[in-house]
Amino acid sequence: IGPFPGSLLHQIPFNVPFLTVPLARAHGKSFAHRSDLRRAKRIVVKLGSAVVTRGDECGLALGRLASIVEQVAMLQNQGREMMIVTSGAVAFGKQRLRHEILLSQSVRQALHSGQNQLKDMSLPVLEARACAAAGQSGLMALYEFNIEILVTNLDFHDEQKRRNLNSTLHELLRMNIVPIINTNDAVVPPPEPNSDLQGVISIKDNDSLAARLAVEMRADLLIALSDVEGLYDSPPGTDDAKLLDTFYPGDQQSITYGTKSRVGIGGMEAKVKAALWALQGGTSVVIANGTHPKVTGHVITDIVEGKKVGTFFSEVKPAGPTVEQQTDMARTAGRALASLLPEQRSEIIYTMADLLTEKREEILSANKKDMEFAVNSGRMPPPLLKRLSLSSSKLNSLAIGLRQIAVSSQDSVGRVVRRTRVANNLELEQITVPIGVLLVAPSRVSHARTSIASGNALLLKGGREAANSNRVLHELAQEALSIHGVRDAIQLVSTREEVEDLCRLEKMIDLIIPRGSSQLVRDIQRAAKGIPVLGHSEGICHVYVDHEASLDKVIKIVRDSKCDYPAACNAMETLLIHRDVLRSPMFDQIIDMLRTENVKVHAGPRFASYLTFSPSEVKSLRTEYGDLECCIEVVDGMLEAVDHIHKYGSSHTDVIVTENEETAEQFLQLVDSACVFWNTSSRFSDGYRFGLGAEVGISTARIHARGPVGLEGLLTTKWVLRGDGHTAADFSEQGSMKYLHENLPVAPSLHGQRTSN
Amino acid sequence: IGPFPGSLLHQIPFNVPFLTVPLARAHGKSFAHRSDLRRAKRIVVKLGSAVVTRGDECGLALGRLASIVEQVAMLQNQGREMMIVTSGAVAFGKQRLRHEILLSQSVRQALHSGQNQLKDMSLPVLEARACAAAGQSGLMALYEFNIEILVTNLDFHDEQKRRNLNSTLHELLRMNIVPIINTNDAVVPPPEPNSDLQGVISIKDNDSLAARLAVEMRADLLIALSDVEGLYDSPPGTDDAKLLDTFYPGDQQSITYGTKSRVGIGGMEAKVKAALWALQGGTSVVIANGTHPKVTGHVITDIVEGKKVGTFFSEVKPAGPTVEQQTDMARTAGRALASLLPEQRSEIIYTMADLLTEKREEILSANKKDMEFAVNSGRMPPPLLKRLSLSSSKLNSLAIGLRQIAVSSQDSVGRVVRRTRVANNLELEQITVPIGVLLVAPSRVSHARTSIASGNALLLKGGREAANSNRVLHELAQEALSIHGVRDAIQLVSTREEVEDLCRLEKMIDLIIPRGSSQLVRDIQRAAKGIPVLGHSEGICHVYVDHEASLDKVIKIVRDSKCDYPAACNAMETLLIHRDVLRSPMFDQIIDMLRTENVKVHAGPRFASYLTFSPSEVKSLRTEYGDLECCIEVVDGMLEAVDHIHKYGSSHTDVIVTENEETAEQFLQLVDSACVFWNTSSRFSDGYRFGLGAEVGISTARIHARGPVGLEGLLTTKWVLRGDGHTAADFSEQGSMKYLHENLPVAPSLHGQRTSN
Repeated sequence: IGPFPGSLLHQIPFNVPFLTVPLARAHGKSFAHRSDLRRAKRIVVKLGSAVVTRGDECGLALGRLASIVEQVAMLQNQGREMMIVTSGAVAFGKQRLRHEILLSQSVRQALHSGQNQLKDMSLPVLEARACAAAGQSGLMALYEFNIEILVTNLDFHDEQKRRNLNSTLHELLRMNIVPIINTNDAVVPPPEPNSDLQGVISIKDNDSLAARLAVEMRADLLIALSDVEGLYDSPPGTDDAKLLDTFYPGDQQSITYGTKSRVGIGGMEAKVKAALWALQGGTSVVIANGTHPKVTGHVITDIVEGKKVGTFFSEVKPAGPTVEQQTDMARTAGRALASLLPEQRSEIIYTMADLLTEKREEILSANKKDMEFAVNSGRMPPPLLKRLSLSSSKLNSLAIGLRQIAVSSQDSVGRVVRRTRVANNLELEQITVPIGVLLVAPSRVSHARTSIASGNALLLKGGREAANSNRVLHELAQEALSIHGVRDAIQLVSTREEVEDLCRLEKMIDLIIPRGSSQLVRDIQRAAKGIPVLGHSEGICHVYVDHEASLDKVIKIVRDSKCDYPAACNAMETLLIHRDVLRSPMFDQIIDMLRTENVKVHAGPRFASYLTFSPSEVKSLRTEYGDLECCIEVVDGMLEAVDHIHKYGSSHTDVIVTENEETAEQFLQLVDSACVFWNTSSRFSDGYRFGLGAEVGISTARIHARGPVGLEGLLTTKWVLRGDGHTAADFSEQGSMKYLHENLPVAPSLHGQRTSN
Repeated sequence: IGPFPGSLLHQIPFNVPFLTVPLARAHGKSFAHRSDLRRAKRIVVKLGSAVVTRGDECGLALGRLASIVEQVAMLQNQGREMMIVTSGAVAFGKQRLRHEILLSQSVRQALHSGQNQLKDMSLPVLEARACAAAGQSGLMALYEFNIEILVTNLDFHDEQKRRNLNSTLHELLRMNIVPIINTNDAVVPPPEPNSDLQGVISIKDNDSLAARLAVEMRADLLIALSDVEGLYDSPPGTDDAKLLDTFYPGDQQSITYGTKSRVGIGGMEAKVKAALWALQGGTSVVIANGTHPKVTGHVITDIVEGKKVGTFFSEVKPAGPTVEQQTDMARTAGRALASLLPEQRSEIIYTMADLLTEKREEILSANKKDMEFAVNSGRMPPPLLKRLSLSSSKLNSLAIGLRQIAVSSQDSVGRVVRRTRVANNLELEQITVPIGVLLVAPSRVSHARTSIASGNALLLKGGREAANSNRVLHELAQEALSIHGVRDAIQLVSTREEVEDLCRLEKMIDLIIPRGSSQLVRDIQRAAKGIPVLGHSEGICHVYVDHEASLDKVIKIVRDSKCDYPAACNAMETLLIHRDVLRSPMFDQIIDMLRTENVKVHAGPRFASYLTFSPSEVKSLRTEYGDLECCIEVVDGMLEAVDHIHKYGSSHTDVIVTENEETAEQFLQLVDSACVFWNTSSRFSDGYRFGLGAEVGISTARIHARGPVGLEGLLTTKWVLRGDGHTAADFSEQGSMKYLHENLPVAPSLHGQRTSN
């Protein structure tokens, strides 16, 4: 299973092993990137006291611990060596002890109750649990298939004990047992602040213990779970506080610790100190929240999968900016791009076109590298290889496309779409503006032109397979953008970033445009919480052949709709036939044509009932075949066809073939789809064919943009009101002013001007 | 905690007790509605074998059981009497046994390993868990604070044993213990099909056992968890299969059981039979999936909260349709409404206006009931009371509003917004169409007019407090709609339905328009998975006072922006002041005015630094006070004001006050908000004031509609293509046709016509 798009969402997180890379010991050198964590072989999971105790009174801690054990067990099953360091057992134990005592009393009472019911009833078993192992039994119950080791602070001081501990743990790991290490809180003296062991690290809290142990055991990764989300650059809750995705030792000066964050032993400063100490010792560290109800169930596995959870401590500060910084830069530069004159944006696009020609060699040579890699991997199917490959002629047509859009897009941004005189000297304008920051994934550099033309900033998320080509093309786009100082408006996101993580950047990204399989679109729609997604997840298009249809047109349209490009979303999937056509020569000719074209026919239930030797009956009338296959179903007439389309269609594109204009117009009116066609192939459902210029995508959403989407879909509007000290109170019953709401003419758009040529 | 909006989403499901109703024993009469389940005092939770065993190999079952125990414990803590019936213990036990044996071998091996490390190391404790209670220990570990009772099928045959069981269980419940009842699978003979106990119910499977026990114990609710979502009307997976939200005994004929659904003992038919048997005995039943990873953590508590999970068995078939049926009816009638002529839609709205006058008495008397109830409850704050209250004059202005919109909306639906000659005889039109089915919540009947005018179907979700008024007004709307046969286009959803549940009707509802607090909007945005939400969650509006501002205008605009209606989303929250204004008389006058108006001033950090005696410094510059309070901050100039707005604002409405046109135009251009104003109050940000006619809401989203939204926001478009047998192949390189893409003029809209008057 590759990391994309299959692993985009783990619907059933614990059933699907996600191991895609060989495990590797880090051997004293911490990992540079989150994505490397997948390779971590030896992992220490540290549970802060909040994790093991919080919510214990309502059973929450128990469930949380079970889910943590579950994740640890899963990772262990993948061949990793797992260790747990836990704290807070005392509190948990006390709670449990109290419960058990209460229970045993109740049972005793019951057993000695007057009627003696429990004693003499003939149930096979009535067993009261013995309260033997009170204290730690709550934890023990969950850790029951493991070994618990209690460590006091003495153990690290005594060299012999330290060696013993070390070899015992190695022995246990060798036996595939998950050791549980617990500071024996009961016997540890209260912490003395600022008296570190050996001047390096204090061993008085579990954070330090975990760090110490992780380094001692040469663990690859230490996951420290507590009740904080991770490390913030300012005290959490303040206006500017940002959760740090990655923290580098050199950045320590930039952190402000709030007084609030220092909650007893294991406050944030201590955590960071312990983490940095472990990092120095060669163990990667992630600090994350292990108490969040909706997340705990997969927090550990998410971290090991390299997802952006909590704060990752890394020794290697990457050269480039983080994706959050890139998004920030893109927004700022995007706002500048939107403020440019239309001619300036055109100029940028022209420059891009020129650079495509000038830098041809460089581009083609980068593409050659990608192609070689893809061919050598032997895993890329020919159609994808073809799409990956660039040629001089492809670059030429790209350049031509750019020049076309440079002209046609001039009136896109800043166009006045509505003007109203609200009152004397109070004028309202509604003008087009870019949406903001777009994420196109997986994206090709050709998406740059639409974003520039519409004044939007763009995050390009290219596939790994096109890494070299995309790098060169992105540099080229930035070079063009820099002629008007907006170089950063297009950012190439590292191939290390997962689309799913980008989908979480709510408030930073304004619109996601997924390009790819309908599964990918669905996955992104699911992952994109709070960010709108423009796209269609399914294209179940119908062609309805009326009894008054022309034979020629039927054959042409059905053939084209199904066979022109069967994998396209606008290809026909279901052919609806008027029942009168069924016994006509037209029907035979349709079938002949489909046979000639090698189209496999599936029969809808009603169609099947008419036939003696029926083709395979469909499992579902909602199937998108995406291949030389289609379903045929019989309907009583146009109205039933409409019903069928509403019931089983995906509101993408639906066609009627008929010579009866009245029937056609009724169909066009009634069918509630993004595109409804009369006597034409469904394949026209396409931005280019519609004459929208650049196609952004096809949307089956019902808001914002519907059907083929051109530049317009990348625009929104803002309202500009110019007054002279007007107040709402001026218009109250006692006020001096009256609303006019007079519509003023808007300047004709270029679009309109072209018409008058 | 009321059910709305506080309980809309339980962010921390296990920490917040949600008990809002007194518990009540059903006493042999099942509950009529899901919402009644909150009152269930005695509850039996039945765990199917899939629940306790599936995923056990990777620890999943353990975590699932822990979470179930956790939920049961929580419900018990609320004072409910909980019982668990479990099955599949044999499989689970075997698994566990295997594991324990392996473990004990490893440990034994370790203890006897050559170096004898484990034995002589000086760790305080190294404890290998005894493997005493193998078999059921996995379950036992989780159920450790409970009593397990094994029941064979004999126990129900023997009257004495049955009575013993009954009184034992009562005794345990009285002691606040959760009994666990388990069929002793090992000793139960294999099931004999169709040989029911006493001709009523088979006791050979756990479904029947649970039903039997629930009735025997006069439980109020039986929750049967297995690996199916609930009861479908057709075999799940087929095209038309719908999960039934509620099932009535009388509907049994309408169910088709698939052969697939009959998986061994406890197939769906058996489950239904057992459920109906329990229902007859007076116990309500819910069948739901207890194995869904993301849901299991709260499936039981959700059911007890009355949420739409699984299938609810009810004896009482409500008179009206279900909300799903209402949505279906609304969509169908809505499509008919959209197909009407614009004059017909106007006529409906005129009729509504007339009916408002004709039925005045009826409406006012219904409203009086609501008002009395609200006043008597003493819990409704005066502003809400005022909003709830209707009067003749309110009805008059409602009628006037209706007549206005009837005129102005005539060109809303079916308007051609774009026409293109794609090729000879191939003409494309983009026309406006309604979005589909809207949900406005909480809604007032005035929302009906906008939906009718825009041809949209509407689900009205009124508050309980306006139940009587809404019922009368809804009847009135339906009466008006029925003059053109589209009565069902507006549906009044029962007050029993929770908004959160409606938000889950993906594919049935096309747009949600929340009206209410920003918290409500955020909650709905979170709950509405896959359904777009039109609304703003925050209005943090700024007024920037430039150093070149006119004193008069500043005072007028700042006063109006803050004081005209401080609770409105378009009221000013932050006043940004040019640093040169700070030491000027203008500043003193602003402060005097704010003092006169009783506005409490908070200081931004920079403003505070200038003052000797500063007012309270703000905690956050992102505060929406919604009251006579505001924050003042100092900026160096217009550009810094823009930065501040981008950083701390909510992109709602931002104002500049200046006499310098160049500064103003730059501000209008640069500020990236839905509304940007020059020298006017922020309060103009409003659909009515903008002259949009009916206001649908104000959107701070960046797509579809932005800022004040009128009817336009309830429209989308569809593409209509009329051809003459055109195919995509005709336009290929070898084809005979060429794209023209000629823009054709569109008929001027009424909107445009009014201008020329």
